[in-house]
Amino acid sequence: MFTADVDGGTFRLRRATRADLPAMVRLLADDALGAGRETAQDMEPYQRAFEAIAADPNHLLVVGGLVPHGDAEGAAVATFQLSFLPGISRQGAWRSQLEGVRVDASLRGQGLGKLMVEWAIAESRRRGCSLMQLTTHVSRTAAHRFYERLGFEASHVGMKLPLQD
Amino acid sequence: MFTADVDGGTFRLRRATRADLPAMVRLLADDALGAGRETAQDMEPYQRAFEAIAADPNHLLVVGGLVPHGDAEGAAVATFQLSFLPGISRQGAWRSQLEGVRVDASLRGQGLGKLMVEWAIAESRRRGCSLMQLTTHVSRTAAHRFYERLGFEASHVGMKLPLQD
Repeated sequence: MFTADVDGGTFRLRRATRADLPAMVRLLADDALGAGRETAQDMEPYQRAFEAIAADPNHLLVVGGLVPHGDAEGAAVATFQLSFLPGISRQGAWRSQLEGVRVDASLRGQGLGKLMVEWAIAESRRRGCSLMQLTTHVSRTAAHRFYERLGFEASHVGMKLPLQD
Repeated sequence: MFTADVDGGTFRLRRATRADLPAMVRLLADDALGAGRETAQDMEPYQRAFEAIAADPNHLLVVGGLVPHGDAEGAAVATFQLSFLPGISRQGAWRSQLEGVRVDASLRGQGLGKLMVEWAIAESRRRGCSLMQLTTHVSRTAAHRFYERLGFEASHVGMKLPLQD
C-alpha cells in the first residue's frame, strides 16, 4: 500500500491480518477513551469482528508496520479502518468513513497519522467516493486540529446512543 | 415493518423500492441543506446508488408511506437509511448508522420522525448492534434536540472532507 522512512526503520501500510489483532487491540486500548472500552482478556469478539470486516470488500482494516531493516513485515504500530458506504443523498454519493485511527504512543509526532489519513483520502478518491467523514470525541481537541489541517471541516455534530443493556 | 395511525390515514414503514426513488429525492431536496445538493434532473446516479444499497444486506433503505384508507402502499412521505457496520473497537462492536432522515414538510409535527427513529433503534438492537450513531449538521439545532430527547448524546464532532474536484 505505501512505505515511508521514519526514525527506527520503514513504516509500511498493509491490510491487517488475524495475527495483527492483539497488537490492534493494544493500540485501541492505549488511549484515554479506549482504556475503558477495550479488553484483551477475551479476544473472541474481536476475532468475530475481524472476520466480518475481512469478508466485506467495502471495509478495509489497515495496519502500519514498523520494519527495522526494511525486509520483513514488522509488528503493527498503527491502525485504522476505512469503510465505503453507498447512500442516496448527495446525488447517490458513496462516502468513505474513517474509524479507529491509532498510532503507537512511542511513535507519535513523526507524521505517521498524517501519512495514514492521506493514504485513506487517496484510496477514497480511487474508489469513487465524493465525501470522506469521521467523528472524533469532543474531548479530542488535538485530533480536531489534526483533521482540520488535512482539510476536514467540523461541520457536523456526532451523536451516539449506546444500545447495550 | 410497522404501521401507525396518523392524521390523514395510516403511516406504514416498508423497504424502499426503485419506484420510490423520485419521492425520496424530492424529500432529500426539500431541505435547507439538501436543496443545493440534490437534483432530480438526472436520476441515473440515484438509481446506481439504490442498486448498491439494495444489494448489500448491511444497508437498509426505508420509506414511510401514507395510506389514506389502510389498504394500499401509499406514496413515500418519509425516508431514512440505516447501515450496520462492523468494527474492531469497543470489543468488536457492530454499530448502526442513521442517514438521510426526512419527513414530508406537510406531515411534520405528528411524531413520524420519532416513530421512524424508534423503529431504527429497535432494529439495531435486533441486529446485535452495541451502538447507534448519526451526524447532523451543526445548523440543525432542532434535530439535535430531537435526537437528544430520544437518548442520543452529542459526544462527538462530525468532520467531513469533500473529495470531488
